[in-house]
Amino acid sequence: MSRILVVNSNTTEAVTARIAATALAACPAGASVTTISAPFGLPLIVTRADWLVAGPATLAALSAHRGGYDAAVIACFGDPGLDAAKELLDLPVLGISEAAFHAAAMLGRRFGVVSFTAALQPMFEDCLEHHGLRARCAGFRMGPGFSGDPGAVADERRGLLLDLVRQSVELDGAEAVILAGGPLAGVAASLQPEVSVPLVDGTAAAVRLAAALVGMVPRREPRLRSLAGYGAEVSRLYTG
Amino acid sequence: MSRILVVNSNTTEAVTARIAATALAACPAGASVTTISAPFGLPLIVTRADWLVAGPATLAALSAHRGGYDAAVIACFGDPGLDAAKELLDLPVLGISEAAFHAAAMLGRRFGVVSFTAALQPMFEDCLEHHGLRARCAGFRMGPGFSGDPGAVADERRGLLLDLVRQSVELDGAEAVILAGGPLAGVAASLQPEVSVPLVDGTAAAVRLAAALVGMVPRREPRLRSLAGYGAEVSRLYTG
Amino acid sequence: MSRILVVNSNTTEAVTARIAATALAACPAGASVTTISAPFGLPLIVTRADWLVAGPATLAALSAHRGGYDAAVIACFGDPGLDAAKELLDLPVLGISEAAFHAAAMLGRRFGVVSFTAALQPMFEDCLEHHGLRARCAGFRMGPGFSGDPGAVADERRGLLLDLVRQSVELDGAEAVILAGGPLAGVAASLQPEVSVPLVDGTAAAVRLAAALVGMVPRREPRLRSLAGYGAEVSRLYTG
Amino acid sequence: MSRILVVNSNTTEAVTARIAATALAACPAGASVTTISAPFGLPLIVTRADWLVAGPATLAALSAHRGGYDAAVIACFGDPGLDAAKELLDLPVLGISEAAFHAAAMLGRRFGVVSFTAALQPMFEDCLEHHGLRARCAGFRMGPGFSGDPGAVADERRGLLLDLVRQSVELDGAEAVILAGGPLAGVAASLQPEVSVPLVDGTAAAVRLAAALVGMVPRREPRLRSLAGYGAEVSRLYTG
Amino acid sequence: MSRILVVNSNTTEAVTARIAATALAACPAGASVTTISAPFGLPLIVTRADWLVAGPATLAALSAHRGGYDAAVIACFGDPGLDAAKELLDLPVLGISEAAFHAAAMLGRRFGVVSFTAALQPMFEDCLEHHGLRARCAGFRMGPGFSGDPGAVADERRGLLLDLVRQSVELDGAEAVILAGGPLAGVAASLQPEVSVPLVDGTAAAVRLAAALVGMVPRREPRLRSLAGYGAEVSRLYTG
Amino acid sequence: MSRILVVNSNTTEAVTARIAATALAACPAGASVTTISAPFGLPLIVTRADWLVAGPATLAALSAHRGGYDAAVIACFGDPGLDAAKELLDLPVLGISEAAFHAAAMLGRRFGVVSFTAALQPMFEDCLEHHGLRARCAGFRMGPGFSGDPGAVADERRGLLLDLVRQSVELDGAEAVILAGGPLAGVAASLQPEVSVPLVDGTAAAVRLAAALVGMVPRREPRLRSLAGYGAEVSRLYTG
Repeated sequence: MSRILVVNSNTTEAVTARIAATALAACPAGASVTTISAPFGLPLIVTRADWLVAGPATLAALSAHRGGYDAAVIACFGDPGLDAAKELLDLPVLGISEAAFHAAAMLGRRFGVVSFTAALQPMFEDCLEHHGLRARCAGFRMGPGFSGDPGAVADERRGLLLDLVRQSVELDGAEAVILAGGPLAGVAASLQPEVSVPLVDGTAAAVRLAAALVGMVPRREPRLRSLAGYGAEVSRLYTG
Repeated sequence: MSRILVVNSNTTEAVTARIAATALAACPAGASVTTISAPFGLPLIVTRADWLVAGPATLAALSAHRGGYDAAVIACFGDPGLDAAKELLDLPVLGISEAAFHAAAMLGRRFGVVSFTAALQPMFEDCLEHHGLRARCAGFRMGPGFSGDPGAVADERRGLLLDLVRQSVELDGAEAVILAGGPLAGVAASLQPEVSVPLVDGTAAAVRLAAALVGMVPRREPRLRSLAGYGAEVSRLYTG
Repeated sequence: MSRILVVNSNTTEAVTARIAATALAACPAGASVTTISAPFGLPLIVTRADWLVAGPATLAALSAHRGGYDAAVIACFGDPGLDAAKELLDLPVLGISEAAFHAAAMLGRRFGVVSFTAALQPMFEDCLEHHGLRARCAGFRMGPGFSGDPGAVADERRGLLLDLVRQSVELDGAEAVILAGGPLAGVAASLQPEVSVPLVDGTAAAVRLAAALVGMVPRREPRLRSLAGYGAEVSRLYTG
Repeated sequence: MSRILVVNSNTTEAVTARIAATALAACPAGASVTTISAPFGLPLIVTRADWLVAGPATLAALSAHRGGYDAAVIACFGDPGLDAAKELLDLPVLGISEAAFHAAAMLGRRFGVVSFTAALQPMFEDCLEHHGLRARCAGFRMGPGFSGDPGAVADERRGLLLDLVRQSVELDGAEAVILAGGPLAGVAASLQPEVSVPLVDGTAAAVRLAAALVGMVPRREPRLRSLAGYGAEVSRLYTG
Repeated sequence: MSRILVVNSNTTEAVTARIAATALAACPAGASVTTISAPFGLPLIVTRADWLVAGPATLAALSAHRGGYDAAVIACFGDPGLDAAKELLDLPVLGISEAAFHAAAMLGRRFGVVSFTAALQPMFEDCLEHHGLRARCAGFRMGPGFSGDPGAVADERRGLLLDLVRQSVELDGAEAVILAGGPLAGVAASLQPEVSVPLVDGTAAAVRLAAALVGMVPRREPRLRSLAGYGAEVSRLYTG
Repeated sequence: MSRILVVNSNTTEAVTARIAATALAACPAGASVTTISAPFGLPLIVTRADWLVAGPATLAALSAHRGGYDAAVIACFGDPGLDAAKELLDLPVLGISEAAFHAAAMLGRRFGVVSFTAALQPMFEDCLEHHGLRARCAGFRMGPGFSGDPGAVADERRGLLLDLVRQSVELDGAEAVILAGGPLAGVAASLQPEVSVPLVDGTAAAVRLAAALVGMVPRREPRLRSLAGYGAEVSRLYTG
């Protein structure tokens, strides 16, 4: 039985609940899934600065549960803390944007990215370039600025999101479309019956792909060093 | 229960047997796997011309078993027939090079590619560029020309392959290494205990990732047209 | 006297006739040209799957006439079978998209691509990336879906094509424009008097460039192997 | 009088002292420079995980001195916290790798990167790609693994570094060479008399370029939000 | 005291006056600036051919004043003669497009380019690609054709330029915007109070960055050769 | 009868003679070829500065013979003056590097570049990037520094060149190899019998491709302007 830990990198419990439901629905046979919030940080991760401070918060969550999971998912679309977690933990760690990009690339030659607010586009573009899949992307389609409750945006903007998906397919030539952003967990499944190309939910894709990679990372000796100024969870990743 | 069909695009039964064993070992809980050979074509796929003629042969295999599987794997490192199969079948189809590139990219920031003969490099490079992951590749390390039995090369060249893997890690900075080529199915698992970075077997990765993507492709209406000059299996993909 | 063989990769004789006329008009001094249809396959090549099955059909045509030509042209815009033909034949083989991209790049720093139906865009984009000239392309301008007679579309959509060419020049900054697709053979010459930048016809460009490259490929020893499941023409390319 | 704040992202005072001396030597007319260490974190930044945890430590240093400088330099070669600092502060912030890449690109068409230990290469490569100047880089030349005192490595490995610079020029065609890594501050000036192409010191380049950009960032209204789990300095960047 | 020579590559004195005023306003403490026109050539540099013939004219200006400056700026947005000047002179030489691209990249992750006439776009695009910063560019926004007085266009089209800047920020996501073209020297400072992202003036950026790089180019032995057909100034760069 | 004018951009008559012989040998049926030297400039074009001053010299040659040719070739491997000539003349103009890159790309999927001296590599790399075919290049193999007679280097270094070609094929995987540099005109034909992949001579390729493109550039109205400081030939291109 593979145990998957899903970490919401923000501190909004309504978003964590939505992610948990989506992760559970996607959990494959022979696996179990647990979803937790970051223990500190911000209620919503929007900018590059937010991404940075959410990184150690995500590591703290991963450290606190160490030994209790076989693969991990970072459920925030910019993948805060991802490279550090891959380096510090000797098991598969996937970000939901990373998983979404790879899954979409396997399901369609060019994929679109849709989300609820244009404010996320710079962070998403950095993320796409970081993962090296820019050439497979047919373009972004983002909603206007948003200042409401991130736990409710998926329902409030459902119609807008469906329109954006259709533009991605019809105008940009997307052969698969990613519904991007932690607050949109579960939206892809809800819209799929109305769309003819695969819709990709980052959380669902990450849970499935993380389970698929369990056991593929060999044990490594940690490089123990002294880290100051962080809480016990983060420091323990450095000091064993 | 997800049913995975694995097609060896060449006609060498010893290679099919090796692929079948690797696929079975990688088959996740809740899935079953069946491995078959291409019904016609060539005993070994080496060049771009080989890749082309292996494509319809692979489609014929996929067509003959249609209805009996939920996802498919094309087990030949250049992925012959892959784009056509994705288009003609409304279920996930993965090539073993495609799966290896994506899995390796999720397991290490830069991945190396190792294989038994330099003759395969041009086809592999085309394939890497086609999948758009060139920027994630740390380089190729290939053995010298080979003219022996493809079913036996994995055992004959085991020491050479281990040396090439080490060069990829130490000289090229690879953080994960792909053992590439249908005839090398199973070699990654055999060498992993001697190597500190993840070794990726295309067949194993493809079986796991294909199982992970089951159900993510919506039903499509086929575009029925008339195809002449191919056998019944290939033609049926066009004429329903 | 250089002999150029032009193969229409589809089986529609009206398209072959149009290609033949365009090829003949473009045939340079000191060369002769013969145009034939694929002996089997599909009436129109639109998708990636079509491209694959048209490949062996194109090889069969090239094989049937072997010894009777000094250079060959594959007259279907996605260039089906091109890499295989280059590998199996020791004489120049050009695809009409390959020739169009190279000619346009020599005639203008950034070139546009215009065609009659958006359905062709994915195959054309793959083709552009395969030839490595993406950075020289100013963009695509494609007409809407088409389900009529491919032999008549050039005439039916002449006005639309002229509009698309003008958009390519004025909005995308194209300094040369390719009229893409086998069924558009000859359209470039017809529209040129109304346009101030060079218009490139893939068939005409390919005939001229193929003639220009005659004699530049040295003789090679074939690698004889056994290919099963194809007709005599295709197999003969493998078995000598 | 422009005031430049230089932050060493690690906590090793001997490295801070070396950076301070180099920064002072590079300080242009009409500017003053102050160099400080990160208030917490790690003694040496080597890996991607180190980079992440050094980010908030760097922000804390920048926040603690806010109002006391007109431009800032992050003096750690991977530029930890750089994008966040650019976003949170409305004045120029440069990383020493960012400054080195841009200065080297203005001084030579292709630049080399030399450093004392190969362990830094993955972080440097990520950094080069992030800044988008990969195409201008002639390659990396790195020394072997290092486990000694980072404050002393510049002196201990001086001969090795000179050899690596020469290889970069003669074998890789570099027309300018970056001496990379906070612990190598000042080495470029020391080696320059023995080398015919410009040697670039990230710290010196960053101080000069930061001074050059003073006044070019307009005032922005902060987006005030609540950040939990960080000390007062980091939180104040979010809460005003 | 660093002496900066600024060369307007065209022969329009009104443009030189505007450049001189902008250069003077940007001149940092401890530096002096002198601005001159090209001694021959064209009144406005618009096309690639113009760029070529402006190159030797720019070299002639640089040669005539040799010994009288410590760094030089080529104040014409396509940077005519830049690579040659870098090679022939052993001191820093910056083009205003080069400086604008680098400064904008240090001030915002993706920068826009705005200018008064679309006719300049092909030369600007070539220039952007030459400097290797294409990936950092959010796009071009150019005004319509222009045939008036280049010395007056900055005032005549001020409103249009402000609109284009806003489109660049709001529609293209630019985080910094370049006002491109020698005739637009000084416009960025004039528009900055109305815009929330940094506006970059190539001339101002180049003067500041050139001053920052003074002293960073080592002395080189010239390769003396015989150049015929040019005036004394250009020839002297070859013959010492 | 198509008339091709070939311009050697340097002033060394021995090189012009070698180019003339190669151009004549490559001249296709129905075409005639005339080869001339630049009327002024340098005896050998090696660096980026040389490239610039050779540009107007090349234009002068093209202008002096205007009306007497239907297509032109610039026979200097960096293609000095090429973009300007394409813009100022309404007929096909090809550079020998441009033609070599395109011909090699049509003859082999990845091409190597071989020349007699490493000093040319920076200019060749700039040129390759300018033409956008970097992704098709398998790498450069260059001889050591050269200070002898450029008219004799082809004979003196024949053995070295053959070795470099073989390294390009065997170590870099080149499927076609360019013998680059005006002074190497004719070497490809001389070495071809000893090599199994196509060898490409830029001069020969350019003559053939230029002849192939005759008639493909429509008449354009010149933009007449006043150019000062150049001789009558160059000025006439601007003033009609």
